[in-house]
Amino acid sequence: MFNFGEAIPFENQTNDVLTVGELLVDMIANEYGEDTACNGYTRYSGGSPSNIAINVHRLGIRSHVASAVGKDGLGGFLIRGLQSAEMDTSGIQQVESSTSMVVITKSQSTPTPIFYRGADYGLEYNDELEQAVINSKILHFSCWPISRVPSRDTVERVIEVARKHKLLIGFDPNYHPLIWPQDEDGVAYVKSMIPKVDIIKPSEDDAERLFGPGTPAEQVGRFLALGAKLVIMTLGKDGALVSNGRETLAFATRATRIEDTTGAGDAFWSGLYAAVVKGYTLRESLELGFAVSAYKLKYTGAVVNLPALEVIQQEYNL
Amino acid sequence: MFNFGEAIPFENQTNDVLTVGELLVDMIANEYGEDTACNGYTRYSGGSPSNIAINVHRLGIRSHVASAVGKDGLGGFLIRGLQSAEMDTSGIQQVESSTSMVVITKSQSTPTPIFYRGADYGLEYNDELEQAVINSKILHFSCWPISRVPSRDTVERVIEVARKHKLLIGFDPNYHPLIWPQDEDGVAYVKSMIPKVDIIKPSEDDAERLFGPGTPAEQVGRFLALGAKLVIMTLGKDGALVSNGRETLAFATRATRIEDTTGAGDAFWSGLYAAVVKGYTLRESLELGFAVSAYKLKYTGAVVNLPALEVIQQEYNL
Repeated sequence: MFNFGEAIPFENQTNDVLTVGELLVDMIANEYGEDTACNGYTRYSGGSPSNIAINVHRLGIRSHVASAVGKDGLGGFLIRGLQSAEMDTSGIQQVESSTSMVVITKSQSTPTPIFYRGADYGLEYNDELEQAVINSKILHFSCWPISRVPSRDTVERVIEVARKHKLLIGFDPNYHPLIWPQDEDGVAYVKSMIPKVDIIKPSEDDAERLFGPGTPAEQVGRFLALGAKLVIMTLGKDGALVSNGRETLAFATRATRIEDTTGAGDAFWSGLYAAVVKGYTLRESLELGFAVSAYKLKYTGAVVNLPALEVIQQEYNL
Repeated sequence: MFNFGEAIPFENQTNDVLTVGELLVDMIANEYGEDTACNGYTRYSGGSPSNIAINVHRLGIRSHVASAVGKDGLGGFLIRGLQSAEMDTSGIQQVESSTSMVVITKSQSTPTPIFYRGADYGLEYNDELEQAVINSKILHFSCWPISRVPSRDTVERVIEVARKHKLLIGFDPNYHPLIWPQDEDGVAYVKSMIPKVDIIKPSEDDAERLFGPGTPAEQVGRFLALGAKLVIMTLGKDGALVSNGRETLAFATRATRIEDTTGAGDAFWSGLYAAVVKGYTLRESLELGFAVSAYKLKYTGAVVNLPALEVIQQEYNL
């Protein structure tokens, strides 16, 4: 049960945030244009688990990533990227499959992201992962690892251990039919995860993909009816609606200048996690999450050079 | 039964060469270097079926490609590439899967090609494909489409119809463990295809992956023992050894200047097919195949701007 005016209590642990899931290469067209217009692409590190792990480290708390990449040049590229951001990469498994990739063609006439799933869903449960869970305060994952086996089985076991050890569990219900196997009802599976976690942060698009159309308040009610404990429904420029089931608060956006929206959601998660670990109340932590997201929006890239949380707190007068 | 001194008889058809199989994007690093050295990539059209189809069209005979791409920007790119090479694209199926891709990192320290299989093996058998087989003189395929279902089932049905209608069948036994499902014995399956086709063109690497080490003559003998009718064993700078089971001929390479080896094998197939369709004897056709390959080696790219076969014949004094 979440109270907006209280801090979330944590036991002492050797790690703060454990993120589990997709580590990807984003292969992004250098220019906007039709299918044949741009043949030049640039690769970037991608995937919310590593984005959030790097962000919270910069904000001033500890993090650990559990992901799987291939034994190939792109897997090496992702591992070296984490290392250069000072991350421990002992939780990165190298499996017999191509490193997962998303190609973004930036075409106006066709669906833009093209998904190449490979190594990411090969993430296996092992003793090291179990220890990482037991040693952490917060567990975070998105729809990617639960969309396929064996990583789905891995996440299910991770959640079990996390609940037993009373971790705070955050889940990004970013359901997308293209990452799910075609013959499976991903919507039903995502809904079945809601009561097993503590915090969810759906966007309006996420909610519509899961429930069909509805007002933000209606969508929040649908998540609560499924057993959600804290729903953070983001509304773009209209801020967010947050409900703990008894009380629903509206938050205004803190964005002043929008340079690039990529990674804004991961920046919110990062600010929220850093703040709750640092002992801010839930309401303060939500405000800090929105402030970190607003800070990120001023810069280009999924992961930007965030300062310590306290610097952002000052900048946004919180 | 092949006789080197005779032309291969064909019935009149509305098409000459039908290629069936992989249509891919090759995403190639712009520079050589270690994993992290080069973030810039350029996309190219790839896959031997389209390479051969375009080549033989330029050499002066007719061709048709049957392949599958995704309903995405990269699929559109591949289709438009074929169209700009004046190819009929009615045999290109668009399926619910990402367009297949090969990423080539050009790193010296890690295995270079990274395979992303998607739409290519979704190729379905249908009435149009059956008509394309019946209307053609030659069928060509490689290991890609037979490595996975449903395209494997499609190729098996295509072969059945091709044999019934007496097409000449060429098969590239370019077996690579990374394109095969990990839990399947791809070597055994590839060997089982040998007696069902007419012409195979293994490289030394192909032979070693299938049989283990051996001299070129030993490897040719192993293919013949499996029921091969015409084995063209390519030996790089040492030319090729060609056997019809009764007689084995050595061919010297015709290469004078080597700018880029990409697509040299497909250029050989293209010259051979164009020549047999034009009524040259098998021995002449093999010489013309090696001449087209030598011509291609002088230029960069998998598909180069080949002139008519007769121009190459003159250039190489054949």
